[in-house]
Amino acid sequence: MKVEGWSYMKSKVLVNWQILYGALGIFLLSFTSFVHSSVSNFDFVGGHPRLVFNASGVDETKSHLGAVPLFDASLEQTRKMVDAEMELGIDVPLPKDFSGGYSHERHKRNYIVAQKAGQLFLLLGDEKYAIYIRDMLLQYASIYNDLPLHPKERSYARGKLFWQCLNDSNWLLYMAQAYDAIYSWLPSEQTQTLNTNLFRPFADFISLENPQFFNRIHNHSAWGNAAVGMIGLVMSDEELVERALFGLQDDGIKINAKDNDGGFIKKPGQVTGFIANLEEPFSPDGYYTEGPYYQRYAMYPFLIFAVAMNNVLPDFEVLEYKDGVLFSAVHALLSLTDHNGEFFPLNDAQKGMSVQSASLVSAVNLAYYYGDRDPALLSVVEKQGAVMLNQAGMSAAIAIRDGQTAPYPRTSIHLTDGADGKQGGISVLRDDQAKLDLVFKYTAHGLSHGHYDKLGISVFHAGQEVLQDYGLVRFVNIEEKGGGNYLPENTTWAKQTIAHNTLVLNEKSHFAGDYAVGSQNHSDLYFTGGDASIQIVSAKETNAYEDTELHRTVAIVKKPDLLRPYIVDLYRVSSAKKNQYDLPFYYQGQMIDSSMNVRVPESLIALGKGSGYQHLYVEGSARSSSESESFTWLYGHRFYSLVQASEQDDQRLFVRLGASDPEFNLRRDPGMIWRKENAKSAVFASVLEAHGSYSPVLEMSKDAERNIDRLITLHNDQEFTALKIIYKNSIKPDVLVVANKAAGESKFHSLEIDGVNYRWQGPFLFQPIEG
Amino acid sequence: MKVEGWSYMKSKVLVNWQILYGALGIFLLSFTSFVHSSVSNFDFVGGHPRLVFNASGVDETKSHLGAVPLFDASLEQTRKMVDAEMELGIDVPLPKDFSGGYSHERHKRNYIVAQKAGQLFLLLGDEKYAIYIRDMLLQYASIYNDLPLHPKERSYARGKLFWQCLNDSNWLLYMAQAYDAIYSWLPSEQTQTLNTNLFRPFADFISLENPQFFNRIHNHSAWGNAAVGMIGLVMSDEELVERALFGLQDDGIKINAKDNDGGFIKKPGQVTGFIANLEEPFSPDGYYTEGPYYQRYAMYPFLIFAVAMNNVLPDFEVLEYKDGVLFSAVHALLSLTDHNGEFFPLNDAQKGMSVQSASLVSAVNLAYYYGDRDPALLSVVEKQGAVMLNQAGMSAAIAIRDGQTAPYPRTSIHLTDGADGKQGGISVLRDDQAKLDLVFKYTAHGLSHGHYDKLGISVFHAGQEVLQDYGLVRFVNIEEKGGGNYLPENTTWAKQTIAHNTLVLNEKSHFAGDYAVGSQNHSDLYFTGGDASIQIVSAKETNAYEDTELHRTVAIVKKPDLLRPYIVDLYRVSSAKKNQYDLPFYYQGQMIDSSMNVRVPESLIALGKGSGYQHLYVEGSARSSSESESFTWLYGHRFYSLVQASEQDDQRLFVRLGASDPEFNLRRDPGMIWRKENAKSAVFASVLEAHGSYSPVLEMSKDAERNIDRLITLHNDQEFTALKIIYKNSIKPDVLVVANKAAGESKFHSLEIDGVNYRWQGPFLFQPIEG
Repeated sequence: MKVEGWSYMKSKVLVNWQILYGALGIFLLSFTSFVHSSVSNFDFVGGHPRLVFNASGVDETKSHLGAVPLFDASLEQTRKMVDAEMELGIDVPLPKDFSGGYSHERHKRNYIVAQKAGQLFLLLGDEKYAIYIRDMLLQYASIYNDLPLHPKERSYARGKLFWQCLNDSNWLLYMAQAYDAIYSWLPSEQTQTLNTNLFRPFADFISLENPQFFNRIHNHSAWGNAAVGMIGLVMSDEELVERALFGLQDDGIKINAKDNDGGFIKKPGQVTGFIANLEEPFSPDGYYTEGPYYQRYAMYPFLIFAVAMNNVLPDFEVLEYKDGVLFSAVHALLSLTDHNGEFFPLNDAQKGMSVQSASLVSAVNLAYYYGDRDPALLSVVEKQGAVMLNQAGMSAAIAIRDGQTAPYPRTSIHLTDGADGKQGGISVLRDDQAKLDLVFKYTAHGLSHGHYDKLGISVFHAGQEVLQDYGLVRFVNIEEKGGGNYLPENTTWAKQTIAHNTLVLNEKSHFAGDYAVGSQNHSDLYFTGGDASIQIVSAKETNAYEDTELHRTVAIVKKPDLLRPYIVDLYRVSSAKKNQYDLPFYYQGQMIDSSMNVRVPESLIALGKGSGYQHLYVEGSARSSSESESFTWLYGHRFYSLVQASEQDDQRLFVRLGASDPEFNLRRDPGMIWRKENAKSAVFASVLEAHGSYSPVLEMSKDAERNIDRLITLHNDQEFTALKIIYKNSIKPDVLVVANKAAGESKFHSLEIDGVNYRWQGPFLFQPIEG
Repeated sequence: MKVEGWSYMKSKVLVNWQILYGALGIFLLSFTSFVHSSVSNFDFVGGHPRLVFNASGVDETKSHLGAVPLFDASLEQTRKMVDAEMELGIDVPLPKDFSGGYSHERHKRNYIVAQKAGQLFLLLGDEKYAIYIRDMLLQYASIYNDLPLHPKERSYARGKLFWQCLNDSNWLLYMAQAYDAIYSWLPSEQTQTLNTNLFRPFADFISLENPQFFNRIHNHSAWGNAAVGMIGLVMSDEELVERALFGLQDDGIKINAKDNDGGFIKKPGQVTGFIANLEEPFSPDGYYTEGPYYQRYAMYPFLIFAVAMNNVLPDFEVLEYKDGVLFSAVHALLSLTDHNGEFFPLNDAQKGMSVQSASLVSAVNLAYYYGDRDPALLSVVEKQGAVMLNQAGMSAAIAIRDGQTAPYPRTSIHLTDGADGKQGGISVLRDDQAKLDLVFKYTAHGLSHGHYDKLGISVFHAGQEVLQDYGLVRFVNIEEKGGGNYLPENTTWAKQTIAHNTLVLNEKSHFAGDYAVGSQNHSDLYFTGGDASIQIVSAKETNAYEDTELHRTVAIVKKPDLLRPYIVDLYRVSSAKKNQYDLPFYYQGQMIDSSMNVRVPESLIALGKGSGYQHLYVEGSARSSSESESFTWLYGHRFYSLVQASEQDDQRLFVRLGASDPEFNLRRDPGMIWRKENAKSAVFASVLEAHGSYSPVLEMSKDAERNIDRLITLHNDQEFTALKIIYKNSIKPDVLVVANKAAGESKFHSLEIDGVNYRWQGPFLFQPIEG
């Protein structure tokens, strides 16, 4: 559909496009002759309102008012909120603050309230809402053209109302909807005034005057493109719609320019605009390469503008683009959540962001209405407890009222990354009954918000982080902490490899922490598989370090004779030369027990000098003296254990974050680093088990005994790695063998271990050891 | 009532008692001639069952079965639990483990299940429950007399089934109820066997053979006394009931002997037994001197045995003793909870223990039924969601069904400590609307579980700890951590003064951490007062350090022109010589902002060598350069600020717990220590404000601006201390003056500050500063 749909669009409204596949395998579009030839071909459908909440949507929605509890409650809540704001009067302050500060929060609130007031005007017909929007817009119009750049100079693309164009784009995207709602109510001389004095200059400012912001492949540009497109749709301004869809043809930006987060602004051969932003960062499975935190943020402009295009310029078939990737994207996003509906904090991500976010309310409502009306989406809407105030929200609310809700499936998934789905991916192994989520990341870098964490894992149990990803170092919209912006430790800690549950060589991050290199590379899926007793996924990374292959295989094992499933983590490294290997496990909570003799120092000093090591104190260390070591901790009243196949002299460093942190920007979280010194090839094999809970009210533990007794590396060479998993309570041990070189499903293997000859087909073997 | 009630009891059943007030002002009873003269005077009421769930209670309860949802649900839940346990069969293992281990947990589960099976037998009439109890008891009887002391040698009073007599007493108290339920169902030769081979020897073991356990004033003995008394009531064994009520007359224990927690076993002139344990640790207000954590634990034996006495030997009027102190005690306990119903962790206390605990279910049910049927208790029962399976539980469940529930008032309280209410006390200042609880402790030491924290405070906001008390260092019933027992850091950290939010002189704990001295002393309430705008309480401590008066005044201020109330903390110290003063504030979460220039060290070393200082790392320090300093942090998505009236060169040490902790027993919690060096008299004045919340989903702060701008010490001498509280947003500043030497309500004061003459009556003045 991808190429065909686009061809169709082209045949109807565009001429002389060339479809190219560029050197990087990215779907590229050449716009050379488009701008000049396509103007005046646009056929804007309908009067106003026309965007998402268009005239027919208004009629349909109004016909159900008062009969749909969830919709009525959302409407009432919005009405109260907007009325309360209107009581306070309109304030359009002079731009001054970073996020968190008054002027920032006020302008933000203005566009949110205005957008909602527009919906209320359309639904309730009360002119006070239209007047409120009109007066606010006229105030903006009266100051906009005289506004200088925002006084805060931090951004690579300063806005006028806000410190960055990104927020100005937020404003425009929302205000376009407010404006659309009252457009036909306004006298034409007022729309003329607003179009000329506010909206067109506003759109030109964030596009023509800020090509370094507008003309990228980045969530920033997705916002900018959508905002310009939306106001273009309102004003029937073909030039703006074209600019939104296809970017600026001549932006004058140097190749390889970077933004203030270190992200590339322009790569060689880069195409830009909304379609390119839809094409390139989304994989065919709907995974957005920046990760779910930014995907959640970007879903709003993507979907809102795509739906508006669908309603106003349906011939473009933007919603159907790339096999309806925006709908897949909503499902991808919903699947990247823990049991509390919070997004896995991959790459730069603030923890706690969840499906409760307003952008997910709209994403799920729109995906339901314009997609295939999947009843599983309704369970998410129910959890959200609010709907959009339009035909999409109404339709979901009606379906819920009528009992059509189905549970949203929490099964294991494997999502590809890359525009063509060939740049690695991400897997989530799940045992829904045990509320276990294992996230395994073998993606591309994730643009400027990516972290250097190839083959990183994180583990969640009942929505609680068992092995955590640190997330970002930023106090979003808390002005006292660096203006609410990214803090230096985001670069010096959060992005570094040692901040993640993956392997570090010689105290250097993957790709030496060099974005130019990292962003050109991705890991590769090696195999996935399994059956009722084991779900398994394996991936490799060969570019992070020179002449070194990282190979990690993770699995969830569920045996009928065990109360609970457990996780296997088999991390194999082979390198041309000897290295120091560090594999961190960022547990949380309190150490309860360890098989090792942990020695604690008198004073705490930083573990290293750079690559994130400068932020870790060593609170304790131990040398292994057994072939299997264990470590148990208590977190959130639950017990967790790692059992690890160890070697003589393996080190364990018990670390604490917080060194070299002059502004106290970092949480004082603990971790355990498994270190092997001076090895070419090495195996780090662990079993992780959540076992039992503790009640401080009953003062009793429940099911606190570990199931796994020991873990032994039976075999390791270039061909095979084999583990023996030994249980307590006389349960027969299991063997897990991974074929390191042949992932083929049909390939036969045989391996003799301890006099037993194992024969099997496919990349792995998991079975009880007899005798 | 206290003396009169006792006299009445005496006149009816006892002869020749002498009532003395001992040297310490404690109500003492001399038992010299009691034991010999009173035997055969006991008039046991009724057949069996006779204890709490007696024959009339069974009839009454059964008559409502099926018609009272909360009761029926509790019954069904219990039936399921007991049936599931019975399916597993009976196991009476040989004693072996500490708490958390199998044999410990199995014996514990046995008595819990047996007691419930007894209730089910009486309510449902199914003999399988009686058979289960009988068979279990016979198994115990078959092994008991041959059991040696428990193999774990840690306790000062080793049990037989458990590692300590305390747990054996738990067993007996519960099993007495199970036995009572089937007593009349059993053939008399079997009761004879059980009486002779199991219960009488069991009772003798924990009393006669363990006087150091049985004959104390301590929650251990309350359990022992009640257990022996309960089985005595079942068996109509007057000797055991007497022993329970009045202790052992000749215990052979040395004066000033101590247990393994450092608590005194016997003080000079000590009377013992249940009545003495009721008399001495409870203040007339119902505050139990060990604190709410142990009060919660002790309420069960106290109430169960008192009610059983009420039913079987009503002439003793145990329930009415000391003006019905057991009912006051239930209310005292309920008032010592945060907004989540969790007990304030005072002295040795595990956090998370709450009104949901089973012992609180019974306490609240019994206080409702045998007390004055206070409908406010029903709201607690509702929250607990379960009731006792007897007439008390039924009566509460009926009242709830019938809509009689009233909210439990969360108002400020002041509870006295000490048997006579003259050993200081504890205050909780509250603003229920703002969900603010300020706990101020000026009690006696609290027996062996007491901490050295005179005039300590802790603050809770919406059930979240804002300034925390560390609690205990113990992983109760988690065997891997020191057998679930108190850990060394409980003594070296948790009990020390620096672990609390109160003043430390010269890095030494109060009373030099000497229990012999600390347990002889208490702080004193100085005054309480207030009106609609301020609630205030002030207390003094003159014994903690030589020639030094500690004087702390805390208040909650609520002004109509402020969105939120705030807390004032005025801590004044005056000493005969110069000292170093440290006042810690154990905040939690992440530092957001500080007015001070905080410098961080390269490596972390311990702050000191002893008295808890060896456990603190210094992560940062600052010197004050202003007369008012501020510090803001974020915790649980809420903002908190301390604004402090400072002096040039005042130090702030930002500390982190965790030094000298080889077993990782301590949480890595932060604190801020305000240090003044080399001063005789000093004032530490702070304002604490909870301001605003942050939503990681909305990524917005709400009401995040502080109300308090600055705090200034206007005046300080022996007579008066005066503070100026300066607000933001042009609200008129306030003055707070405390009279340091005259707490009288009627006393007139005058003080000139900055040319203004303030005149007022009473110990404090709080008013706006004019002009």
